[in-house]
Amino acid sequence: MLRVGIIGVGAMGTQHFLRLMTRINNATVTAVSDVNEARAREVTAPYESVRFMADPIALIRDTEVDAIVIVSADKTHEEFCLEALRLKKFIFCEKPLSASSEGARKVVDAEMAGGKRLIQLGFNRRFDEAYQELKELVVSGRLGEPLVAHCAHRNADYPEAFDDVVAVTGTAIHEIDTMSWLVGDYFTKAQVIFPKTTKYSKNPNLHDPQIVLLTTSSGMVITAEIWVNCQYAYDIRCEVLCEDGTATLPRHARVNVCTKNSSSVGMTSDGLGFFEESYNREFQAWVDACNEDTYCAAAASAWDGYCAAVTTDACLKSQISGGIEDVPLTDRPDFYKG
Amino acid sequence: MLRVGIIGVGAMGTQHFLRLMTRINNATVTAVSDVNEARAREVTAPYESVRFMADPIALIRDTEVDAIVIVSADKTHEEFCLEALRLKKFIFCEKPLSASSEGARKVVDAEMAGGKRLIQLGFNRRFDEAYQELKELVVSGRLGEPLVAHCAHRNADYPEAFDDVVAVTGTAIHEIDTMSWLVGDYFTKAQVIFPKTTKYSKNPNLHDPQIVLLTTSSGMVITAEIWVNCQYAYDIRCEVLCEDGTATLPRHARVNVCTKNSSSVGMTSDGLGFFEESYNREFQAWVDACNEDTYCAAAASAWDGYCAAVTTDACLKSQISGGIEDVPLTDRPDFYKG
Amino acid sequence: MLRVGIIGVGAMGTQHFLRLMTRINNATVTAVSDVNEARAREVTAPYESVRFMADPIALIRDTEVDAIVIVSADKTHEEFCLEALRLKKFIFCEKPLSASSEGARKVVDAEMAGGKRLIQLGFNRRFDEAYQELKELVVSGRLGEPLVAHCAHRNADYPEAFDDVVAVTGTAIHEIDTMSWLVGDYFTKAQVIFPKTTKYSKNPNLHDPQIVLLTTSSGMVITAEIWVNCQYAYDIRCEVLCEDGTATLPRHARVNVCTKNSSSVGMTSDGLGFFEESYNREFQAWVDACNEDTYCAAAASAWDGYCAAVTTDACLKSQISGGIEDVPLTDRPDFYKG
Amino acid sequence: MLRVGIIGVGAMGTQHFLRLMTRINNATVTAVSDVNEARAREVTAPYESVRFMADPIALIRDTEVDAIVIVSADKTHEEFCLEALRLKKFIFCEKPLSASSEGARKVVDAEMAGGKRLIQLGFNRRFDEAYQELKELVVSGRLGEPLVAHCAHRNADYPEAFDDVVAVTGTAIHEIDTMSWLVGDYFTKAQVIFPKTTKYSKNPNLHDPQIVLLTTSSGMVITAEIWVNCQYAYDIRCEVLCEDGTATLPRHARVNVCTKNSSSVGMTSDGLGFFEESYNREFQAWVDACNEDTYCAAAASAWDGYCAAVTTDACLKSQISGGIEDVPLTDRPDFYKG
Repeated sequence: MLRVGIIGVGAMGTQHFLRLMTRINNATVTAVSDVNEARAREVTAPYESVRFMADPIALIRDTEVDAIVIVSADKTHEEFCLEALRLKKFIFCEKPLSASSEGARKVVDAEMAGGKRLIQLGFNRRFDEAYQELKELVVSGRLGEPLVAHCAHRNADYPEAFDDVVAVTGTAIHEIDTMSWLVGDYFTKAQVIFPKTTKYSKNPNLHDPQIVLLTTSSGMVITAEIWVNCQYAYDIRCEVLCEDGTATLPRHARVNVCTKNSSSVGMTSDGLGFFEESYNREFQAWVDACNEDTYCAAAASAWDGYCAAVTTDACLKSQISGGIEDVPLTDRPDFYKG
Repeated sequence: MLRVGIIGVGAMGTQHFLRLMTRINNATVTAVSDVNEARAREVTAPYESVRFMADPIALIRDTEVDAIVIVSADKTHEEFCLEALRLKKFIFCEKPLSASSEGARKVVDAEMAGGKRLIQLGFNRRFDEAYQELKELVVSGRLGEPLVAHCAHRNADYPEAFDDVVAVTGTAIHEIDTMSWLVGDYFTKAQVIFPKTTKYSKNPNLHDPQIVLLTTSSGMVITAEIWVNCQYAYDIRCEVLCEDGTATLPRHARVNVCTKNSSSVGMTSDGLGFFEESYNREFQAWVDACNEDTYCAAAASAWDGYCAAVTTDACLKSQISGGIEDVPLTDRPDFYKG
Repeated sequence: MLRVGIIGVGAMGTQHFLRLMTRINNATVTAVSDVNEARAREVTAPYESVRFMADPIALIRDTEVDAIVIVSADKTHEEFCLEALRLKKFIFCEKPLSASSEGARKVVDAEMAGGKRLIQLGFNRRFDEAYQELKELVVSGRLGEPLVAHCAHRNADYPEAFDDVVAVTGTAIHEIDTMSWLVGDYFTKAQVIFPKTTKYSKNPNLHDPQIVLLTTSSGMVITAEIWVNCQYAYDIRCEVLCEDGTATLPRHARVNVCTKNSSSVGMTSDGLGFFEESYNREFQAWVDACNEDTYCAAAASAWDGYCAAVTTDACLKSQISGGIEDVPLTDRPDFYKG
Repeated sequence: MLRVGIIGVGAMGTQHFLRLMTRINNATVTAVSDVNEARAREVTAPYESVRFMADPIALIRDTEVDAIVIVSADKTHEEFCLEALRLKKFIFCEKPLSASSEGARKVVDAEMAGGKRLIQLGFNRRFDEAYQELKELVVSGRLGEPLVAHCAHRNADYPEAFDDVVAVTGTAIHEIDTMSWLVGDYFTKAQVIFPKTTKYSKNPNLHDPQIVLLTTSSGMVITAEIWVNCQYAYDIRCEVLCEDGTATLPRHARVNVCTKNSSSVGMTSDGLGFFEESYNREFQAWVDACNEDTYCAAAASAWDGYCAAVTTDACLKSQISGGIEDVPLTDRPDFYKG
């Protein structure tokens, strides 16, 4: 029974807390920390055995906490990861690994120095069954070499605070990790294009939609459309073009309704709900790995988080320059292979 | 240039008239007859060369008419066919061949006695590309022997005059001809089942929907749902179950729209529009055959019209008895083979 | 932490055992019984804390067993249920409730006499998300009254032992429970029709496919095709026709592949895998209910098992008579409402 | 009865010839010219009334030719159009209007000087029903302003002669015309990106696939993937992103086959066959317009041909520069409005 401490119980942290308490086998949450004590106490109230701890560092150090789940503000991830690494505790850190690529590199270096893979990064799509089927197919070689992939990441509606920076570091980052995982390659070039912006953009500093073009070290090109006020639903698309054919992510299976001269299926606006099952599988895999004192090879590592940070840096540069920017990445260290 | 005379320019007759004048190659309409002279004159007004003839028999006999299209009331089909057969003129007769199976038999006998295949019956689905692809696949044997087929024939909305009899003779008759054509077999048993009736049925003598069960001479079973006030659209479905797999008619290709948490495609309530292209191909095939002084083997013959009539008779009996009724059909005469 | 004893670790029992040990929250298996001791010991070997008990009755009575999972041979279900009811232990019983409708009635009567709902019957489709969406839609009334439903239950390949009886009691029984749950009604009439049998039927006493026609107390008709050697895959279909439209179960979401002039998605032949997620949700719901000392209202009850048994009896009669048979059911007792 | 002369009876010209002789109402071909006399005589052999004329200019001037169909080599289009314009004969010219944008401009100027719209350019997709539905939806405003469109133009297999120039002037040109027609705008910027090239490219001067990025005068961005050795089939995709939702071109309606653990529909490699019906409608519309001494407003005009030529010029520049190139276009002259 893995004893988990969670830092951060906002919208996503609360879901992870409930997931661990009600859906995941062989784990339990023993402690929770949050800057908002009232909210944390409300979330944990039905579960007497869960302690509230105001100080997240104390939570990390607590002897009844074997493993840490970090769902706090982005800027805190680096510090919490470093402390947990120091104590050789297991870490599940929601993306990003750090608020900067330099910070991400520090975490990577600390993990390597410790000699043990302890960090699992929360890129949940790697646990989505459809993406897994897509990857297996591409990796199998049945369709030949991949040449191009077209992706779309669409959210129904985003709040005013969301700007061009978050469009890259909070949204495009998912396509960046997913596609580099899917084709087993990293990016060397990035370009961002701004089409006409939707009237539904609430922030003068948000171009919406945006088109991100990424080139891998082998020459593959990824076109990733990022559109966070598409209004109609949460929608994720991906088609991979290989030399002998193409493979496309399905839409979710929903009941087909024929009524009033229309044949339709429902779509959801709830991004967390859309990927619900992948989160469950991601957490079960993490818990199982921790209980076996190892790491989950299928999950994103600290290195993947570093790669994502370097790539998003290049995208941010291109948003300003309008041109093609280099992504200064190198081959994966042996420590992070397999 | 085939010179065509049309008897009947109601809704469907008008479409056929316009089709021949504007879409079909190597044919022209020279004469039109209709019980409603005003309507006929209105329909033909833009085309000076088309004569109106009050007497349909005179039209059939007219020397400037090579071929007759019969789209008049069902009860007149037999008489017009017999007269045109007598004159050895080409006939395109909308279904049914006759208002009774006895009448249909008389027409068949007259055509055989004349020694020349002159009648093409208007079962248009045989010219629908999707049904043709379905038939080719089943006939190819790639999926093994057919065992069962599930059909649905749905109309959005039917007028008060439509009752249980017309549900069989006007609607189910399409599934009867299509399926016997598709699997190359005729029916030996029929049963009609009445589920709960929709509140949209406008006639106390109309059970709607109905389920028609048909058994072929080889033991295949066809389940044919007939639902003429389904409200939502005109919709035709067909799945054929063969020993090694199944084949299913597609829905029409329509633009997919994602908006307001729904992914949808439009459907039409217009049955004639739904099968528009099959009517065009059916008429072009008929015109081409007439111009080559032969018949179109792909089309329904008088014999097929007779088989449909005998089968609908059994369905009508079952509507009253509630039981399984025999369909007294025999093998196709050589005259109607090929 | 619910302590579970499992009776029967064949193919399905083993899956349920592993499910409880690795996927389900707040439950653990403490004891396992099976007629095949070697198999049981092999299955449980990796889990030291699980005891093997040769005598299933002893397992039911064991003080370290709070709740029983019955996955043994059909004929044993009645006895094990009665014993567990006597001890007021929670029961998860795979369908059928009993090998006979009389036996099922005895279990119902015993449960009612005990005054507490203790039995959850393993009709897993009630926990399938697509079926749940379908039911919610039908129950919502958005599409008006249901009139007809078309179902298909197809298995790729079944062993020689599978005959006409099992086609009803092992296969059609799923459509029977699912449809009565979905529309909230019970059946009053049943008829079975035998089309031409596939060459892949391995048993002279198996007609395959079969068409089962069921009428509910309100007059709805269900057409249920049962085809257990369809070769191509495990496939479950369901379309519900309501007065204002229809609702159709989706196929599973799978990656679309375009290659070699074909656009395709994969299908599985693995029925347990097909419904994997529904089994997980079914067991979590059962465990959660037991832990709260109540029953899961969404699940099938002993009464539902009794209704299924009476309905399958009528189907078996019709297989022999060829006619329409009565289903002698009555309204649900208050004890089983809600 | 429109009397048509055809120049060029290669693969496409032969199809147009047969189309006019067997499918199109109120037109006939009276004369045919081709650089390959033997082929032309073979194609026209079954039709006695069709004359072969070695000299295309003589054909254009022939008194029994009312209207000219130009399907000859690209470089000849300009000369034939100018001669037919001089004689004020109707012209159906396959794209491109000229081999150069300067030539296209000359034809436009000549037509305007003549004061009568006589040229219909062969951009057949404007007559495809799915594209028409897509355009109607976008133009209706139901989905709000269009922001982005994603297109793909895929051919199964192209011969060695096909290089980067033809990828733009022969293939991308279809997306260029279709999208400017669909959104009623012209392009101001173009960029071409080269991903890794497929091993199936047969020409060292062909990058395949390519990604063409086009910006309209209003700021919309079109991503158009051009892939002419995709192997799997002929495939055309288009999704238009509007402020309130998206609209996507359907795939063709084909029979769904379930067999061997796969659910599939067939795809064709035959591009002409894929758009067969649009060609029929395009030609019928042209014939109808000519017979009424007018032009078809739905079709592409000489101006559209000029715009396409200027846009492809910019794409060719970008293939070399790798950067974003200007497209020097201006608003549509009144002569070409409506």
